[in-house]
Amino acid sequence: MDQATITLSVELSYQGAPFHGFARQEGLDTVQGCVEDALQVLFRRPVETVCAGRTDAGVHARGQVVSFELDACEVEARGLPAIARSLNALTPPSIGIRGIQERPAGFSARFDAQSREYRYFLSTQPVPPLVMRDFCWHMPGELDIAAMNHAAAYLIGEHDFKSFCLAASAQGKSTTRCVLELTVDPVEIAGDELVCMRVVGTAFLHSMVRTMAGTLAMVGRGLREPSWVQQVLQARTREAAGQTAPAQGLVFWKVEY
Amino acid sequence: MDQATITLSVELSYQGAPFHGFARQEGLDTVQGCVEDALQVLFRRPVETVCAGRTDAGVHARGQVVSFELDACEVEARGLPAIARSLNALTPPSIGIRGIQERPAGFSARFDAQSREYRYFLSTQPVPPLVMRDFCWHMPGELDIAAMNHAAAYLIGEHDFKSFCLAASAQGKSTTRCVLELTVDPVEIAGDELVCMRVVGTAFLHSMVRTMAGTLAMVGRGLREPSWVQQVLQARTREAAGQTAPAQGLVFWKVEY
Repeated sequence: MDQATITLSVELSYQGAPFHGFARQEGLDTVQGCVEDALQVLFRRPVETVCAGRTDAGVHARGQVVSFELDACEVEARGLPAIARSLNALTPPSIGIRGIQERPAGFSARFDAQSREYRYFLSTQPVPPLVMRDFCWHMPGELDIAAMNHAAAYLIGEHDFKSFCLAASAQGKSTTRCVLELTVDPVEIAGDELVCMRVVGTAFLHSMVRTMAGTLAMVGRGLREPSWVQQVLQARTREAAGQTAPAQGLVFWKVEY
Repeated sequence: MDQATITLSVELSYQGAPFHGFARQEGLDTVQGCVEDALQVLFRRPVETVCAGRTDAGVHARGQVVSFELDACEVEARGLPAIARSLNALTPPSIGIRGIQERPAGFSARFDAQSREYRYFLSTQPVPPLVMRDFCWHMPGELDIAAMNHAAAYLIGEHDFKSFCLAASAQGKSTTRCVLELTVDPVEIAGDELVCMRVVGTAFLHSMVRTMAGTLAMVGRGLREPSWVQQVLQARTREAAGQTAPAQGLVFWKVEY
């Protein structure tokens, strides 16, 4: 007899530094490993999880979403708030379970995401910012933000982003993605001036956001003209783009369903 | 023959966690110890420093100011920007030298300060904030901000703040201080909602800001009426006030000269 199952999702934030990325890898500290271990302790059986975006080692998350299925009786026995509290207690302090909700049957945090938002923070001040020190790419010097926005405009819309994808991950798969919004703005955070690249898209390739940040940074530095970004897109090879910006400046910000 | 001396000040930020406070203590990592050691390496002689506010262990600074004297020839040989860069290179990464300037002869970062500003951050969300995690007092639950501001109003102006001073430090010294501004406001920092207590005063007693934060938090929690703060002031004993709020929520924000 089939037991009724209930699909849940949790929203979680985490600091990137303590983890070898989101995806479970045996013998390494990963976010998925911590969450699944906590679920196993709580429900005394393995529970598989699916996430909205597999973040790399060192990348932070403010609003990662993870979905999983439980038996109806497992949910009813505890209630959602208690499950969230228990997961918080059973995961390391660098992971925060911010919310939990029931989803329609068959919901997937990955496949049902309508859009994903990432933010990449740069600090151009001579010394690193106080609070954001471990959440930015510290690159002292001037950045031409208008030029970066000009360049960013070429990346908005549906394009083949093969040049912005880690080469090994691009093999034999479609590298076409749709960028809905991409802006670069000065922001003040806890008394420090930073630059924030905000990008919203339906989905992203491996290292795509960090390669965009590294590429736009070259334009901001005046090393390339904004229109160069169009050539980078057309080249369809990773070598054409700028560097992969450091992981610690990237925050997986939000997912819309 | 007297050599001409030049008085300099540096503005520095630092994270509180790595240090046993600002003031030099032999055998312990302190901010003053790091800065004076760097000056000694640079100028091959001991250089004494004076700070605007001696922060306790765990307290952060965004705009601490430190003054010291150099011989004119020592300044001329290098120039101010190079001195600042060298100090940055010779201090740990958790200390940032944000600026350097020449001051009038006899200037003291401590005695010439017109006002000092501190900010105390509280997080009332169920899970700690992402970026501000190590820069706040995490106290899940509701805070009545209007009541806290009502209570804060009693503390503005010149008062005997003996009840807000670490008892041992209050012995035999004046405990009258002047609070110029004191407000409590919700703030959004890097995608998280926090509460910020901002206080400006001419000078502060030992633990005064943290005791204010702990006292106002009791009002915010509804454990005391706002007018209770007036009784706390009048009691002139540390036991009358609320707890000393944790050091990690406090940031020494700015000094005006």
